[in-house]
Amino acid sequence: MSDKGALVLFSGGVDSTTALALAVSEMGSGSVTALSVSYGQKHVKEIEAAKKLSRYFNVRLIQLDLSEIFKFSGCSLLGRNSGEEIPKESYAEQLKKTNGSPVSTYVPFRNGLFLSAAAAYAMSLGADEILYGAHSDDAAGNAYPDCSEAFNTAMNTAIYEGTGGAVRIRAPFVGLTKAEVVRQGVGLGVPYELTWSCYEGQDEPCRVCGTCRDRRAAFLANGLDLY
Amino acid sequence: MSDKGALVLFSGGVDSTTALALAVSEMGSGSVTALSVSYGQKHVKEIEAAKKLSRYFNVRLIQLDLSEIFKFSGCSLLGRNSGEEIPKESYAEQLKKTNGSPVSTYVPFRNGLFLSAAAAYAMSLGADEILYGAHSDDAAGNAYPDCSEAFNTAMNTAIYEGTGGAVRIRAPFVGLTKAEVVRQGVGLGVPYELTWSCYEGQDEPCRVCGTCRDRRAAFLANGLDLY
Repeated sequence: MSDKGALVLFSGGVDSTTALALAVSEMGSGSVTALSVSYGQKHVKEIEAAKKLSRYFNVRLIQLDLSEIFKFSGCSLLGRNSGEEIPKESYAEQLKKTNGSPVSTYVPFRNGLFLSAAAAYAMSLGADEILYGAHSDDAAGNAYPDCSEAFNTAMNTAIYEGTGGAVRIRAPFVGLTKAEVVRQGVGLGVPYELTWSCYEGQDEPCRVCGTCRDRRAAFLANGLDLY
Repeated sequence: MSDKGALVLFSGGVDSTTALALAVSEMGSGSVTALSVSYGQKHVKEIEAAKKLSRYFNVRLIQLDLSEIFKFSGCSLLGRNSGEEIPKESYAEQLKKTNGSPVSTYVPFRNGLFLSAAAAYAMSLGADEILYGAHSDDAAGNAYPDCSEAFNTAMNTAIYEGTGGAVRIRAPFVGLTKAEVVRQGVGLGVPYELTWSCYEGQDEPCRVCGTCRDRRAAFLANGLDLY
């Protein structure tokens, strides 16, 4: 737990909203800042959800646009690549096709970049902890190599050393499945109906992309009938 | 040496220009991209130098503005903090006063952020190597913790793991002093008169800030009468 203040890497999805609720429950909303990064994703609904939820939790929200950095990427998540279809399969099925390479929704080194930006903000604001909603399902296979334990460990060391010991990453859910994250969130009173996960940029969740499927399963495992 | 292409983290200063010259000598200019990041620094002359030098070496230059991320920082390098004076002392003298904490020209986790952005670009462009001009003088004391060997090692691992093994950092000067970097650069024909290092945003180098002093000493050690 942080002494000085926490910065939560916050997308408005299930995992990072649970991390935000945890930080607020530990420290009070005045010591917590949420950082929401847009990167040219199709799902700008995420950003609307981040705004609603930061108001709900009464925390300061910093918004940052890093889409410029991904302008050469062919990732299917990016709005500019509107011809690229987002896979309608579970991650396990997608990984069979990629032969262990990252899936088409991998955004190049996104988490490394977001955590580095969070470290810069945290140090400027005098916060000593970055909260990050990584959990064990994300790291399965090699779908998202920037969610792996090897990545998380090295990035944590890089941030601790590179800030002269001023900032640490804390990933409280790293040993949990998404269903277990939701179980914790239910205990913390997270309003999951306000969160947004779908990769498609429509008004309603598509219910068939990998992230819609995963989210639905985690809710059902906790007796929540939500999409 | 890279197989597929190199991205050089490029400020237009002495060290990164030497790294750019090394990459071009190894691979040819068509396989090399330079990435120049502005972060709100007073010394925008750096960016002009980066443009001139990328034309000189005939490499593609990508320019990125990350100044938004540092808007809460009190670092004396940032143009917005125009009341903050840049120290007119060597780093060793500055460190005596900070008691081992970072010096006032430390920009929070700047190198971590720049390397992460470079990893994202490298992966999008199909380059497998990030060249980075870190050398042993930068890491002295704890002036810049994001230049330390512990940071470099961890960041290298984070980038390798987080890109699924697609991108590595290479810091060819990490065991060299700045004077030894210049010696290599002289052998590579680097036009050091086009580089810019001074932290003050004036037309001419101030000749008294830490980086002006270091640069001058490295040139003199190689028989170059330049500022």
